[in-house]
Amino acid sequence: MEGLLPELDVIRKDFPILERVLDNGQSLVYLDSANTSQKPQVVIDTMVDHLERHNANISRAMHQLGAESTEAFEAARDKVTAFIGAPSRDEVIFTKNATESLNLVANTLAWATGDLAIGEGDEVVITEMEHHSNIVPWQMLTQRKGATLTWFGLTDEGRLDLSNIDELINERTKVVSLTWVSNMLGTINPVAEIARRAHEVGAIVVVDASQAVPQLPVDVTASGADLLVFTGHKVVGPTGIGVLWGKRAVLDALPPFHGGGEMIETVRMDVSTYAGIPHKFEAGTPPIVEAIGLGAAVDYLGHIGMEAIHDHEKAITAYALEGLATLPGLTVLGPLDATQRGGAISFELEGVHPHDIAQVLDSRGVAVRAGHHCAKPAHARFGVQSSTRMSSYLYTTPAEIDALVEGLEYTRSYFKLS
Amino acid sequence: MEGLLPELDVIRKDFPILERVLDNGQSLVYLDSANTSQKPQVVIDTMVDHLERHNANISRAMHQLGAESTEAFEAARDKVTAFIGAPSRDEVIFTKNATESLNLVANTLAWATGDLAIGEGDEVVITEMEHHSNIVPWQMLTQRKGATLTWFGLTDEGRLDLSNIDELINERTKVVSLTWVSNMLGTINPVAEIARRAHEVGAIVVVDASQAVPQLPVDVTASGADLLVFTGHKVVGPTGIGVLWGKRAVLDALPPFHGGGEMIETVRMDVSTYAGIPHKFEAGTPPIVEAIGLGAAVDYLGHIGMEAIHDHEKAITAYALEGLATLPGLTVLGPLDATQRGGAISFELEGVHPHDIAQVLDSRGVAVRAGHHCAKPAHARFGVQSSTRMSSYLYTTPAEIDALVEGLEYTRSYFKLS
Repeated sequence: MEGLLPELDVIRKDFPILERVLDNGQSLVYLDSANTSQKPQVVIDTMVDHLERHNANISRAMHQLGAESTEAFEAARDKVTAFIGAPSRDEVIFTKNATESLNLVANTLAWATGDLAIGEGDEVVITEMEHHSNIVPWQMLTQRKGATLTWFGLTDEGRLDLSNIDELINERTKVVSLTWVSNMLGTINPVAEIARRAHEVGAIVVVDASQAVPQLPVDVTASGADLLVFTGHKVVGPTGIGVLWGKRAVLDALPPFHGGGEMIETVRMDVSTYAGIPHKFEAGTPPIVEAIGLGAAVDYLGHIGMEAIHDHEKAITAYALEGLATLPGLTVLGPLDATQRGGAISFELEGVHPHDIAQVLDSRGVAVRAGHHCAKPAHARFGVQSSTRMSSYLYTTPAEIDALVEGLEYTRSYFKLS
Repeated sequence: MEGLLPELDVIRKDFPILERVLDNGQSLVYLDSANTSQKPQVVIDTMVDHLERHNANISRAMHQLGAESTEAFEAARDKVTAFIGAPSRDEVIFTKNATESLNLVANTLAWATGDLAIGEGDEVVITEMEHHSNIVPWQMLTQRKGATLTWFGLTDEGRLDLSNIDELINERTKVVSLTWVSNMLGTINPVAEIARRAHEVGAIVVVDASQAVPQLPVDVTASGADLLVFTGHKVVGPTGIGVLWGKRAVLDALPPFHGGGEMIETVRMDVSTYAGIPHKFEAGTPPIVEAIGLGAAVDYLGHIGMEAIHDHEKAITAYALEGLATLPGLTVLGPLDATQRGGAISFELEGVHPHDIAQVLDSRGVAVRAGHHCAKPAHARFGVQSSTRMSSYLYTTPAEIDALVEGLEYTRSYFKLS
């Protein structure tokens, strides 16, 4: 099959969990990578080496372990900086997950003064295909500030309806926040095009790249984003670590988020002054071993190559869409062209509840997600409460897609669908 | 020596890093545990087992790995609940660190309505010995809401000056937030006594237990706290995980903190409703492997016994205070009675800058912290910019204290102090 990663068997051996035999004796077929990715041995080993040999708090300690930990933590920042093409390491903020990154932005915008301040009459634009983490913070912000939340609707094919872009993004718009790749529909959005319009009216552009950074070569400068977020656990890194990238001018203009150690310049009892970026946004002991694990993760992905990973995802996605199309009563929610979508495919199977589908598949070792995938409005748009979602990654094989399709055929027969 | 943990050699073998030989050939003498603690093998192994065999996102996945991960994550919540004597597992919120826990409280109080609302004329009381993480969030809150920040001063012995408690905590007081054990002075504060006064005037009590939970048997109900925070990496757990415990009535009355997945009940584009505790405060993919590691950590400490660990800390601290007293020109900042303090000892050595002390000690393998220890106001109170701090834990031996004292003798001779 064209586009697949060469040496896929070698790559799979890097991920110890893929050899897992489940309690029912079935081998694991892991098709839930949009939910969280599995971890290669090198990420696990890097974290263990840190904990067993170098562990210390960073920045604050004047001893060898402290120096080693600080160096490893800051090296991880350098690796992430290079991986996303950020112009400066100072623009890369470590958070705990993409959700915290988005809330950091929404909260500090609520406190901002000057050009970034948001108040009555101002508008924030999102889209109907956002993950809840890119909806709820903006609802909270606009409610608190008396501003208005508006959004792009979706076409029947699961793309953004851009027909009213010039009315939607107007001179009252202060922020446009959207996902690059939908975690439910798989849609890849034209971020740069939307960013151009946003910048025409002086709005800032926030991009949720949680599903994009794992799958696509990402260059933050070319993306059009002013601020961009993603999470470590979806790029073969650990949980507990997320990233906020932002243009220096925007990050400098935002007030600090959390108060505490490391984000200060000086503290008196009555008043404090704050450090510059990135420390301004990194109060307290950061997720040290998690950042170091993330550094190993992006090294691993970079070594394989994001172009090659993207090609692999496209090939697997095309093969999956083909296989799913053979199943009577199955409807894919989202674009049907694999070259223009990510590797998460949500679908309905007429007459069977998604939870039942997932349970039958699980009995055959096939792990998929069933539910609203933290995207209730996108489901509502298509008149459903929930769906079943398969999602692939660099370690996914065509044979695993076959197992999914066979599992769905079995599901149909199990539920006696004609 | 009385009070030391029996089988200290066996305990030390549990911590792989303690066998570390440094670059200069010196064996590691780690006396920086108040900064971060080292990790026993069982914590590391538990995290590795999760990553290699069970990793999946939690709550959302209907497959075996998802069920295993969810079960392990929620079991960690049960372990923490039992460890701190919380009345209900719902009252235990996982955050990323103690700083986030404190900022969660300060931010949600800023948005609270009803009894907890804070406005002009209201007062928040802290103390002069707080870590920056328990100062800056309250400065931000009071500045934003037009409230007033006040604080307990310190006696020359480094205790809270309680002589004006009834004026300081008065009917305008909405919040009293204080550390249980000072990270700089070592002082153990009379939290229950202060809480009684706070509750008389209807204020809520927030306790920073970052240094207390590692060292003392902690029962949150007996403590007098309404809300209590600590961090995982100081209780032999990983970075990236913190805890907020709160009384159900208080947590229920606070609005949510971050918006995103898992903290919602339902989401429409225009409005959302929120889940109950603990999920209301846990937006996004939580620090899963970190919580699981923390569960293993509190199991480990619980197995040894917090009474025994406290006795060990007291014995080591008494021995260290004795040793430090033999050094001319050395002044300990904080109480001199080991039975009434924690295991962090900050000191000055006349004529030598703390950074120089730490550097000389490091050349001999002795790791201590030098600087303001994120407690600038407490240093200012004693007329100094910075200090050197040694801090012990359950794995600390009398021989390591000897190495510190010998190192300080060497420092004195190195700098030709008479």
